[in-house]
Amino acid sequence: MPRIDIVLVEPMYEGNCGFVARVMKNFGFSNLVLVNPCSIGDEGISRASHARELLLGAERCSLPEVFARSDLVVATTGTVAKSVCHPMRVPYYSPKELRERIRDYCGRVSILFGRENWGLNNTEVERSDLLCTIPASPEYPILNISHAVGIICYELADLPRGTYNLASAFEMDHLYRHVDQYLDQIEHPFFKRPLTMVMIRRILGRAGLTTREASTLHGLLRRSENHLRRKL
Amino acid sequence: MPRIDIVLVEPMYEGNCGFVARVMKNFGFSNLVLVNPCSIGDEGISRASHARELLLGAERCSLPEVFARSDLVVATTGTVAKSVCHPMRVPYYSPKELRERIRDYCGRVSILFGRENWGLNNTEVERSDLLCTIPASPEYPILNISHAVGIICYELADLPRGTYNLASAFEMDHLYRHVDQYLDQIEHPFFKRPLTMVMIRRILGRAGLTTREASTLHGLLRRSENHLRRKL
Repeated sequence: MPRIDIVLVEPMYEGNCGFVARVMKNFGFSNLVLVNPCSIGDEGISRASHARELLLGAERCSLPEVFARSDLVVATTGTVAKSVCHPMRVPYYSPKELRERIRDYCGRVSILFGRENWGLNNTEVERSDLLCTIPASPEYPILNISHAVGIICYELADLPRGTYNLASAFEMDHLYRHVDQYLDQIEHPFFKRPLTMVMIRRILGRAGLTTREASTLHGLLRRSENHLRRKL
Repeated sequence: MPRIDIVLVEPMYEGNCGFVARVMKNFGFSNLVLVNPCSIGDEGISRASHARELLLGAERCSLPEVFARSDLVVATTGTVAKSVCHPMRVPYYSPKELRERIRDYCGRVSILFGRENWGLNNTEVERSDLLCTIPASPEYPILNISHAVGIICYELADLPRGTYNLASAFEMDHLYRHVDQYLDQIEHPFFKRPLTMVMIRRILGRAGLTTREASTLHGLLRRSENHLRRKL
């Protein structure tokens, strides 16, 4: 991934700046750039929560400086409906497409977010290299700036969600054999058996059992078997 | 898609409720359910902005009612690191996986978001059918509740980003022939021609020209040709 700068162009509310810093940190981004921002005080710091340092350490610079030093500038715009009509604002990328487009770039990418009341102006959009729009409901397509930054950061970070071990094929076969034996013990009619076993395989297959879960099901079957034996 | 209810369990700050309503509406969701919420006043309404009606019309009900009427209950949890260790909180889905998992369901799906200070408690998580976690930075994985709702709604809505017409193969071939002719006119060395044409094809191919853009490039070439002719 390239270096990513999140650039707020003339943000008007310190609370939003704080929320932006927080959600950036949530997804592991740390370069916040403020272009001619409102003053940042207690409310901004409170909204930044544990991203206070990120907010207070945000770089201040001018938009010409941002353009001069960035290898790629991405303008974000929230107004899909209008933008589709305006040749200057089309084609644009969705956040997912933006991620695919820049993931293998080396360099410095600045992503611009406009003012809360009217976004980026035409000059700013024109000078940018790429456009990115978050697809939103035509009934109310204007996102709060921190929500927009959050969604872009979420997509660009594309963090792994962590893995868990599925029970192995061997463990699952063992479990299915156990179920089959158990059906014997409760005298499940033999002619129904193949379909029932397929259904059990479908249910457990869809659930995607972990090793621990498979072992718990074994345990439950064994416990049932023990109780059945005592009754004999 | 099933019917989706966004359920806030004991939200503590009206501002967050307002922001949640707004971002829901941004992605076309309208069923907000509040379980034992804080009181909602001016600050919440102001943050809801154009989703004021959604916030004020939110249903109030108890958590047992939510469980009783939902065909599937999804618990969201922000604490990846801990949850991986705790068997009760694993396996879980990412928002993308959740979308794939429920997109073809018919029924009513309630997605629970916990309290701002400590999320959902163990009993609430245990009773839920599926778990969903937004992958976040281990340095600061706790999202503001409205950012979490925003990302889940963004993924579940999976709105189309709008389409634009690429220039057709015919139009592009026409453009490439024009470029080739133009290279003749400026006496581009013949031995370099094939590689240069491939490079031009790669550049314009990567850019994905619209019909309008292809036509503008034609225009620029024609204008250059006209100027060249005048000089002769």
